[in-house]
Amino acid sequence: MTEEKLTKEEIEKLLAKANAPKAEAVKLHPYYLGKMQTVPKCSVWDFDAFAIWYTPGVAEACRKIAETPAKSFTMTNRANTIAVVSDGTRVLGLGDIGPEAGQPVMEGKALLFKYLGGVDAFALSIGNHYGDSPDEAKRLTAEEIIKFVKLLQPSVGGINLEDISKPKCYTVLETLRNDPEITIPVWHDDAQGTASVVTAGVIGAAHHVGKELDQLKIALLGVGAANTRTAYVLEAAGVPLKNMIMADSKGIITNDRPDIIEQKDYDTFKYDLAQKTNEEGRSGDFGVATEGADVMISASKSAEDVVKKDWISHMASDSIVFACANPIPEIWPWDAKAAGARVIGTGRSDFDNQINNSLGFPAIFRGTLDVNATTITDEMCVAAAQAMADIAIKNGTTDKYIIPSMDEWELFPYEATKVGMKAIEQGVARVIMEEEELLKVTSEKIKYARDLTKSMMDTGFIKPKI
Amino acid sequence: MTEEKLTKEEIEKLLAKANAPKAEAVKLHPYYLGKMQTVPKCSVWDFDAFAIWYTPGVAEACRKIAETPAKSFTMTNRANTIAVVSDGTRVLGLGDIGPEAGQPVMEGKALLFKYLGGVDAFALSIGNHYGDSPDEAKRLTAEEIIKFVKLLQPSVGGINLEDISKPKCYTVLETLRNDPEITIPVWHDDAQGTASVVTAGVIGAAHHVGKELDQLKIALLGVGAANTRTAYVLEAAGVPLKNMIMADSKGIITNDRPDIIEQKDYDTFKYDLAQKTNEEGRSGDFGVATEGADVMISASKSAEDVVKKDWISHMASDSIVFACANPIPEIWPWDAKAAGARVIGTGRSDFDNQINNSLGFPAIFRGTLDVNATTITDEMCVAAAQAMADIAIKNGTTDKYIIPSMDEWELFPYEATKVGMKAIEQGVARVIMEEEELLKVTSEKIKYARDLTKSMMDTGFIKPKI
Repeated sequence: MTEEKLTKEEIEKLLAKANAPKAEAVKLHPYYLGKMQTVPKCSVWDFDAFAIWYTPGVAEACRKIAETPAKSFTMTNRANTIAVVSDGTRVLGLGDIGPEAGQPVMEGKALLFKYLGGVDAFALSIGNHYGDSPDEAKRLTAEEIIKFVKLLQPSVGGINLEDISKPKCYTVLETLRNDPEITIPVWHDDAQGTASVVTAGVIGAAHHVGKELDQLKIALLGVGAANTRTAYVLEAAGVPLKNMIMADSKGIITNDRPDIIEQKDYDTFKYDLAQKTNEEGRSGDFGVATEGADVMISASKSAEDVVKKDWISHMASDSIVFACANPIPEIWPWDAKAAGARVIGTGRSDFDNQINNSLGFPAIFRGTLDVNATTITDEMCVAAAQAMADIAIKNGTTDKYIIPSMDEWELFPYEATKVGMKAIEQGVARVIMEEEELLKVTSEKIKYARDLTKSMMDTGFIKPKI
Repeated sequence: MTEEKLTKEEIEKLLAKANAPKAEAVKLHPYYLGKMQTVPKCSVWDFDAFAIWYTPGVAEACRKIAETPAKSFTMTNRANTIAVVSDGTRVLGLGDIGPEAGQPVMEGKALLFKYLGGVDAFALSIGNHYGDSPDEAKRLTAEEIIKFVKLLQPSVGGINLEDISKPKCYTVLETLRNDPEITIPVWHDDAQGTASVVTAGVIGAAHHVGKELDQLKIALLGVGAANTRTAYVLEAAGVPLKNMIMADSKGIITNDRPDIIEQKDYDTFKYDLAQKTNEEGRSGDFGVATEGADVMISASKSAEDVVKKDWISHMASDSIVFACANPIPEIWPWDAKAAGARVIGTGRSDFDNQINNSLGFPAIFRGTLDVNATTITDEMCVAAAQAMADIAIKNGTTDKYIIPSMDEWELFPYEATKVGMKAIEQGVARVIMEEEELLKVTSEKIKYARDLTKSMMDTGFIKPKI
């Protein structure tokens, strides 16, 4: 029940509820002293095992890789290992809090990677030393982050970039993705991850209300990393860019807006989108963009009424509204409902239709790693989005269910398999499998992670929470 | 029985046995697809847990660290996490095989860190891309390694450098250790680790044969990373440098050897040791160094007869011989015995008195992390060495038992505790504890790692070897 009109008091309660996890987090993080640890995946049958796993035996595993470098994907855990890399300059809603302070998020990401995707991730929040108080002048440059990530390549099967400020994040991602010396996927979850899940929501909701993707008119509020990549992934999914209208804090982006032209080299994507979107040439505030739109997607400021009820009320019939800011969406679901929206999604787990990155990255990397893909293409993102929507459609969509939730176990191996098969189809995979076989592989690995976590809880190796 | 004279045939058998782990390693590494994985240390009681461990709750853990950076040691796994960093330029006996090929060793190290020390380590073999064949020109410079390690600092409680070629390894280690911006321990296991364990052997053997450390005359063959630091740690343990004589491939190092003076800025340690050792001013080959010596330590070439029987036969009575090269020691134990040595140690697990790094680094980091020390001093290495020797002395030394072996469980928490207490005594610890309390902490963490591994094997999460 997220769309009934609430009283002031009920809203206060809701906000209090939204704050409850904060207190729990501050209590439980020091209780467990962090969230992730390392354990063997190989047998230690007795102390003789170390003569195999370490010197002298290990030297022969090394020699095999020296002869055939590709064997690093079988002689080590590289094929299942990724690094989550952040400089802590744009952490959640907190902004530039630095790498030490960003690390709980990265470790949380590593937890989700393992639990939902069976992927071994280590959290690397990197940065210069600045003593006891943050010093923005010492934040890393794009070049420093790029160099660091390149050096990691021999040890990992992929890189997940996270919470890096804009436009540095674009430079880092695009440079790494276009570097011919980098033959492992580099992914920016705030961009590609969010785009995949939002696109899943659009596919599911459009199906539900009976609209075709190539006919959709979409208004997007916010032209940051998330909505920028969302526009391109939606395009890859079949929504023409010309049918989209985007707005930033200055209003609708148009092909002649002087500030965008001036910043062309600094924010090339915004410039590109300003040229290709908004075929009708509308201008003005975001309310002008939503007129007659089928879909509204906001990835903007977390505050009430950033998106006005009026702007929703003049959308097309059967309108779809995704207000993604956390914890307070740009418009409350009940307000959007009252304004006439039919399908409403937010980033919150306590509301219907959660648009949640965790539905994306663990499975996307699972499939990518299992076919040893060299990159993650926009088409692979679309395959992931379609897979998410497939599950909702199979289970029967409703206004309140156009995308699956995190606890739908079947989603992850299915999505991973679709991503892997798309990589094979596009020729970016180094391991070729039949779909059935890949589904078996992805299912086993994800099940292993969940079962192991449960076993550790049952046997007391993970203690109960206080 | 490692000191009886063997026939040619028996020696052949022994070498074949030494090769057996290689075949096993090549079979078992791909079977397990690597050796280490990540798992949660926190409860995932249901899907609501992710609202604590990830957004929105996690933001508050971040905010606490942003306010008080030291909280990164309690809000994340940083206090138990280290990185094993290598550029793969001097891997075991294999030399410069590059980072991909070195990674099985680093992952093996991570396994030993966890199993023996309860320390979570991730293996980072770093390097530039060079395609399908190694390209030495693309190997990292000392500056590149230093920069990379510095950026890791916000995420880890310590750094273990490994298998970096000389003299780059000196520059990297000394620069990082002396950088005031680095407030976590940086350790080079090939230097400090080996030095700690060799020193343990010297302390145990000297005790056994009834000689005083400050009276010992020691001949060292090899002036690489290992013996260089061994000389300094032995000095910290009480053996005067002037009583040591060191030799490299050109013979005894002397204060006037032109090649050493010329390379002064390039290999400052060798220059320093050439000034401070060898008070008697001997010169010539290593045989001249061993005349009348109480102890011979070789960390040189892995081949038979690198150390001649003649050189051993003119050592002092009750002589101690540590031939550390692997897999073939510089002199076979039976040859050393025949030449008159009393206590003989090697790097091999199938011979008596194994001088094994694994006795050192896991416990040394355990103790260092548990008191959150900012560095690992030579005195902490001596404390570790003394602790190793203590265990052998307590159990009763013999000619064939002057140092404990890896399967003596009590060693590790005891050694860790001694290291941590020394850090507290020296004022480099940020967490102060009583010895009894620290022993409890270190014991619990090491026991946890072993019990968890066993549980995973019992429950099938680690499958039996083939």
